Amino acid sequence: MMSRLTNAKLIDPDQALACVLEHAAVARARTVALARAVGLVLAREVRADRDYPPFDRAMMDGYAVRAEDAGRTLPVAGLVPAGDARPGAGRPRVEPGLAVEIMTGAACPEGTEAVVMKEKVRREGDRVTLPERIRVGDHVAARGSECAAGQSLLASGEPLTPLAVAVLATVGLHEVDVIPEPSLAAITTGDELARPGEVPGPTQIRDSNGPMLLAQARRAGLSRCRELHAADSLASLAAVLAECEDTDLVILTGGVSAGRFDLVPEAVVAWGAEVLFHKVSQKPGKPILFARRERAAAGAQLIFGLPGNPLSTHFGFHRYVLPAIRRRMGWRSVLPEAAHGRLAAPLVIGADRTLFVPLRVEPEGRAYAATPLRGEGSADIFATFRANAYLRLPPGEHALDADTEVDFEWMGERR
Amino acid sequence: MMSRLTNAKLIDPDQALACVLEHAAVARARTVALARAVGLVLAREVRADRDYPPFDRAMMDGYAVRAEDAGRTLPVAGLVPAGDARPGAGRPRVEPGLAVEIMTGAACPEGTEAVVMKEKVRREGDRVTLPERIRVGDHVAARGSECAAGQSLLASGEPLTPLAVAVLATVGLHEVDVIPEPSLAAITTGDELARPGEVPGPTQIRDSNGPMLLAQARRAGLSRCRELHAADSLASLAAVLAECEDTDLVILTGGVSAGRFDLVPEAVVAWGAEVLFHKVSQKPGKPILFARRERAAAGAQLIFGLPGNPLSTHFGFHRYVLPAIRRRMGWRSVLPEAAHGRLAAPLVIGADRTLFVPLRVEPEGRAYAATPLRGEGSADIFATFRANAYLRLPPGEHALDADTEVDFEWMGERR
Repeated sequence: MMSRLTNAKLIDPDQALACVLEHAAVARARTVALARAVGLVLAREVRADRDYPPFDRAMMDGYAVRAEDAGRTLPVAGLVPAGDARPGAGRPRVEPGLAVEIMTGAACPEGTEAVVMKEKVRREGDRVTLPERIRVGDHVAARGSECAAGQSLLASGEPLTPLAVAVLATVGLHEVDVIPEPSLAAITTGDELARPGEVPGPTQIRDSNGPMLLAQARRAGLSRCRELHAADSLASLAAVLAECEDTDLVILTGGVSAGRFDLVPEAVVAWGAEVLFHKVSQKPGKPILFARRERAAAGAQLIFGLPGNPLSTHFGFHRYVLPAIRRRMGWRSVLPEAAHGRLAAPLVIGADRTLFVPLRVEPEGRAYAATPLRGEGSADIFATFRANAYLRLPPGEHALDADTEVDFEWMGERR
Repeated sequence: MMSRLTNAKLIDPDQALACVLEHAAVARARTVALARAVGLVLAREVRADRDYPPFDRAMMDGYAVRAEDAGRTLPVAGLVPAGDARPGAGRPRVEPGLAVEIMTGAACPEGTEAVVMKEKVRREGDRVTLPERIRVGDHVAARGSECAAGQSLLASGEPLTPLAVAVLATVGLHEVDVIPEPSLAAITTGDELARPGEVPGPTQIRDSNGPMLLAQARRAGLSRCRELHAADSLASLAAVLAECEDTDLVILTGGVSAGRFDLVPEAVVAWGAEVLFHKVSQKPGKPILFARRERAAAGAQLIFGLPGNPLSTHFGFHRYVLPAIRRRMGWRSVLPEAAHGRLAAPLVIGADRTLFVPLRVEPEGRAYAATPLRGEGSADIFATFRANAYLRLPPGEHALDADTEVDFEWMGERR
């Protein structure tokens, strides 16, 4: 029953990440309602459907006038509200010697050269006295001055922020082609896990990896996520994996080491996946498996086997699963965001692998102060759950004084 | 029909924000499923239900032994997998001269002094040769070494990150008391808006504020959001506001200036709200209204009237609505996150009000380069939709050279 993959070559964290990104292809576009598009990436260029503004638009409440009437007192020949739907013949016209009252956002009447702000005139009854100086174009946004009909507004690949959503709504897109989010299944393994709701037996623990992974996935913008559990047998793993045929990303936790109960590698191979790496020279999370499984129609599935310790699982998601999700979702920049600051406490640590140390980073004026969080090993999340960043250190022994300047990468949880 | 509030005093942006935060109370706690809790704030202290680890836990795959047996070759008296559910009498014991094979995460058998990693022994048949040096406690996480039963783990007010969710799952909480997210309604106003799906008439435009506000709310973590529309009449506004009786945050866009079609202030007062401010000395978004309406049982509603121009609406949400949401949700830090960088282009701008200039900020090595985005006024989002930060400048005339160091605040959209 020993996995055929026990002696897989140890690769370094950067090779592992490059391998994940090489196999994480951008997903095929899908059409979604505009209200669902925020946070996703646009999959098709969007052009202006008409000139913007679509008409000469008043930018202030005031009076539409001719520039030559500066300083004069004129009769007010009507009012144009925004959205005035009267047919052309029924609308007031601006002519020399005539002013038309107008509201912000309204289409300027024919003949308008400028809009004078209402704060700059003296109104008495139905007459208005204009200021001494009026320039042609004052407070008028000319038709097409923001963009012309047919002009490219958003390129394929553009992230759909709220402001980008406003542009799409402006040009009349109620549906939009986007790169959809992947679906995800988190499969917990291990006979030591009590079933949800059960009181754990004396040698059992509760599952924390399933809820944590779903929380990480949700923070990454995924909504189609579910949690499954497999017992420590190949038959149980096979049955649970068979439920994941339609799932884009499959994460297994536990059972991935080379122990005799660590059946995940064998189960993944039996499911038809190709294992691309199995061990990474890093701490935490050395026994981490990455595999790819081809499907006829729906594209390749990505499979991650993460160690069962909560911090190792968290780190594995942060460093490998999250960039794969972002690549699939068409993000231009898929790596965790980096920053730098000073150590707020000394750090003495060593390993023959690349180290990733959980940090609690707090703002300190315009800079950051980073406190290393050390627990009783990678199963201890009580001492480390307030971490919001990881510090990377090369293999070897390290004795860093407080105030040492360090680069770190955010977990995406700044609080 | 002119609003009674036309001559409201102009206050500065910091007074306005302080007023919003003074009236935005932390919401009452609610119990939610753990899976829904990520991103919310914990409303009640959480303590450990038992010791952690709950038993002396093997931290490696290997052999449970006595330290005195270092260097000796011993018979292997059985195997303890993680979660071994055999009753005490059926489990192997460690005694001098006897080793027990053990898996990571398993409860150490009675008599265990240390676990020796399987990589450090020579196994032949059912006998194992131990290394020359074994220290008591090696690779054993002692019961209670991470935390003791009853110990406080998370305080009320703790943000529920994925790692915090893992702690809650570990101690058996399937439901958790949190500060819930507020519900939100975005009410667009204005007869110039074409109905969704309609082709706009020659003087009409499409609504972009509604979809943008819902996108901003969604990015802020809200899920109970809806969009409503009111025509430019007090009757229509009253009817739509009446639908918002159960909504915590009500945002109206448009109709908030002092123009004769700007009926929002009057409608809000008629609905029974107290207007707390109506104009802020800022650009964009000077005509902004903030009001509060008491409800008997459900606590006060907060009402924001934002100008109809998309950038003014976006900025009003960013600067006033978002901090109010965060305060209601119990966040410790409610202001937009600040950072600093250099201007990538010169900026010449002036106003007699505090200026907030949209910026596109890109990383530049370990620093940031910020490009000011200027459109044809605050209705022009084509030129500015890629903004991801705001630069604040005091009232007055500014001529900033490229490379000037500036502080800015993130919109929360880093891409």
